Amino acid sequence: MFKGLEGVYVAESELCLIDGENSKLYYVGYDVEELAEKSCYEEVVYLLFNRRLPTKSELAEFKSELIRHRALWSEQLEFIDKFDGSKEPLGLLSSLLLISYDIDSKYMGNNHLTRAVRLVSLMASGLAAIIRKGMGLRFVEPNPALGHAANFLYMIREEEPDEEDVMMLDKLMILQAEHGLPASTFAALVTASTMADLYSSLVSGLLALRGPLHVGASEAAHNQLLEIESPDRVEEWFSRAMAEKRRIMGFGHRVYRTYDPRARILKELAHRLAVTRGGEIRRLYEVAAKLEEVGIRHLAPRGIYPNVDYWSPIIYMALGIPKEYYTLMYAMSRVAGIVAHVLEYWTDNKLIRPLHLYTGEKGKRYVPVEER
Amino acid sequence: MFKGLEGVYVAESELCLIDGENSKLYYVGYDVEELAEKSCYEEVVYLLFNRRLPTKSELAEFKSELIRHRALWSEQLEFIDKFDGSKEPLGLLSSLLLISYDIDSKYMGNNHLTRAVRLVSLMASGLAAIIRKGMGLRFVEPNPALGHAANFLYMIREEEPDEEDVMMLDKLMILQAEHGLPASTFAALVTASTMADLYSSLVSGLLALRGPLHVGASEAAHNQLLEIESPDRVEEWFSRAMAEKRRIMGFGHRVYRTYDPRARILKELAHRLAVTRGGEIRRLYEVAAKLEEVGIRHLAPRGIYPNVDYWSPIIYMALGIPKEYYTLMYAMSRVAGIVAHVLEYWTDNKLIRPLHLYTGEKGKRYVPVEER
Repeated sequence: MFKGLEGVYVAESELCLIDGENSKLYYVGYDVEELAEKSCYEEVVYLLFNRRLPTKSELAEFKSELIRHRALWSEQLEFIDKFDGSKEPLGLLSSLLLISYDIDSKYMGNNHLTRAVRLVSLMASGLAAIIRKGMGLRFVEPNPALGHAANFLYMIREEEPDEEDVMMLDKLMILQAEHGLPASTFAALVTASTMADLYSSLVSGLLALRGPLHVGASEAAHNQLLEIESPDRVEEWFSRAMAEKRRIMGFGHRVYRTYDPRARILKELAHRLAVTRGGEIRRLYEVAAKLEEVGIRHLAPRGIYPNVDYWSPIIYMALGIPKEYYTLMYAMSRVAGIVAHVLEYWTDNKLIRPLHLYTGEKGKRYVPVEER
Repeated sequence: MFKGLEGVYVAESELCLIDGENSKLYYVGYDVEELAEKSCYEEVVYLLFNRRLPTKSELAEFKSELIRHRALWSEQLEFIDKFDGSKEPLGLLSSLLLISYDIDSKYMGNNHLTRAVRLVSLMASGLAAIIRKGMGLRFVEPNPALGHAANFLYMIREEEPDEEDVMMLDKLMILQAEHGLPASTFAALVTASTMADLYSSLVSGLLALRGPLHVGASEAAHNQLLEIESPDRVEEWFSRAMAEKRRIMGFGHRVYRTYDPRARILKELAHRLAVTRGGEIRRLYEVAAKLEEVGIRHLAPRGIYPNVDYWSPIIYMALGIPKEYYTLMYAMSRVAGIVAHVLEYWTDNKLIRPLHLYTGEKGKRYVPVEER
C-alpha cells in the first residue's frame, strides 16, 4: 500500500532537480538562484517547454509569440464580466480556461506547443481581468510593448509599473514556475495520461491548488502575520500556537527538510522591499523575520523550515495584489511547470490507473427494500 | 519506477471489488448484476455514499433529497444559455460545476454529504439543460413526481418517458456508477487529497474522461458500428483493422482480462431493444453482435474482451441521446463513484505527492543570452 505515494517514483523528468539536503533547486540543470538573478520568466518558460535555453533570436520570437497570445476574446471578457470572481477566483479562472478551449480552437491550431504558449499568456490576461473585475474596474487591454510580468501589472493598474515592481514579480514567477510533482502537477498528469487535451489537464491540476494541504498557502501565511501584528508578540503567539498544536503557515514541505532555496531568495527580496517601501511592508517583514527565527529554533530539529509561501505575501503586498488572489498568482507562475510536465509525459505516455485494496465484506445478498 | 501506477495500490476502499478472473463486479459487497436487476440508481448512490443499503424510510428521504437538489438557479441557466455546449459539452458541464460552487454555497450549507447529493442531481439537471440547449430547445424544469432516470429523460424530451426507456437508463446508470480508481476517479482523489472542495475534486476527475485512453469511448464504439454498416461486412472490416493495427473500440480493459460483467448485462438490454425497437437499432445490434463474435475469436487469447462502452451506444441510441453526449452520460452515472471515493478517502486523508526521477544533466552554468 502506497497511500499518498510518498517516496514513489511515477515518471522520469528532466525538468527539475530538488536537492533537499543541500537546499538547492535546479530547472533543467540550471541553479534556480542563478536563473532568478540573471534570467526572465519568459526564458524560464522556454527552458521548461524545450528543455534547453533559447538562442537570442529564439527568445525574441518566443517573447513575441507570448505577446500575440495575450488577447482575450469578447466571449471570454463577457464571461468574466458575468461572474464575480472575488469569492471563488480559482474556480472562475479554471472555468474560463475550460470555455476557452473551444473559443481558442477557432483562432489557433491544435499544435501542442502553440497551445502551451497560449495557456501561459491566457493565465496572466485572464487573472488580470478577474482581479480588475473583483476591484470593480474595467478591463485593461494588454500592452504589447511590455514583458510578461510588466504587462500583467499594467493590466491590473492601467499604468506602467516601475522597475522594482517588475523585477520583484518576474523573480517571484521564476521561483514558482516549476517544482516536480506536487498534487497539482500530478493531477494534471493523471488527466493528461488519458490523452485529454492540455486545457483540461491544466485545469485538473489547478483545482488541486484549492486545497489547504497543497503548498500555496501564502494567503494563510499573510493572515498569520496580520494576526501576530508586531515582532514583540511573536514569542508569545508562537508558544500558544505550539500548545494548541496549530500549524505554522508557510513552514514545512514534504520534500525539503532544510531551508527552501526559493524562500531564501524571496527573503532577500522581501528585505529589500522592507527597506525601500517602509511602513506596513516593513512592519510585516519584521514580524516575519522574528517568527522565522523563533520557528526555526523550535522546528528545524524536526526538519521544518520556511517554504516558498512564507515570504511571498510581503512581495504580493508590495505589488498591491489583494490576498484572495495569492493562490492564483502562484498558479499563473506554475502554469509553465504543469504544462511542461504534461508535454514531457506525452513524449512517452502511459495511462495512469492505480489500484485500490478492497477492504469490505464479500458476497452480501441483496434484500429488497420492503424486507429490510 | 511505477509509471502508470500499474499494479500499485494507492488506497483502501470498501466501494467495489473487481473480480476480473471470474468476470464479476461488486459494489460494497453486492453483485452488480443483482443490483442492476433489483435496485435503482438512487439506492445504489445511497449504498456508495453510506457503504450500506438504506432502510425503506432512509431511501424515501434520500430520494426526496435528490429531488429537492434538482433545481438550476438562474445564473446557471444563463451560463448554459450563453455557451454552446455541443462542441465541448464536458468542458461546459465542468465549467458549470465550478461556477456552481459559489452559487450553491448561498443556498445550501457546506456539509459534505449534502453537497455530494447536490452534485448527483446537478450533474443530471445540468446535462439535461446542456443537451436541450445543444438541440436548440428551451430548458425544461425538473419534474418532482419522477425518479432520477425518468426525470432526466423528461428534462430532455419535455414529456414523460415510457417504462422501458426509464428501466434501460436506470440499469445503465447503475452499471456505470462505480469502478474503482480509473484515471478519472484517481485524478479526483489527488485533488481531494489537498482538502480541496468536492466540486473541484469532481471536476478534476471529470476532465480525465475527455481523453480517448480512458474507458468512456462509447461514441467511438458507435461510430465504429456505423462505419461497418452491416453484419456481412464485419469479417473484412475486422481483418483490415487488424492489418492496420487499429484498436477495436469498446474492446479491452486494464483490469478485466475476461468478459466485462457490465457488458454482459448491457448486451442483454441491447438485445431486448433490438427486438422491441427494430429498424436502425436492430441493424446496429446485429453489427455489434457479429463484431463481438469475430473480435472475441481473435482477441480473447490476449485477454481482450468487450468492455462497458461496447454495448452502451445501442442503449443511448434507443434513448435518443445524441452521440456527442455519451461521455457525459457516463459522467452523470459515475459522479456517484467519484464522489463516494472522495468521501471515503477523506475519512483518513493523506496528501498524494509522488516523486519524479530526475534524468537530466546536472550543474549547468547559465550563459547570458547575448553570449549564446
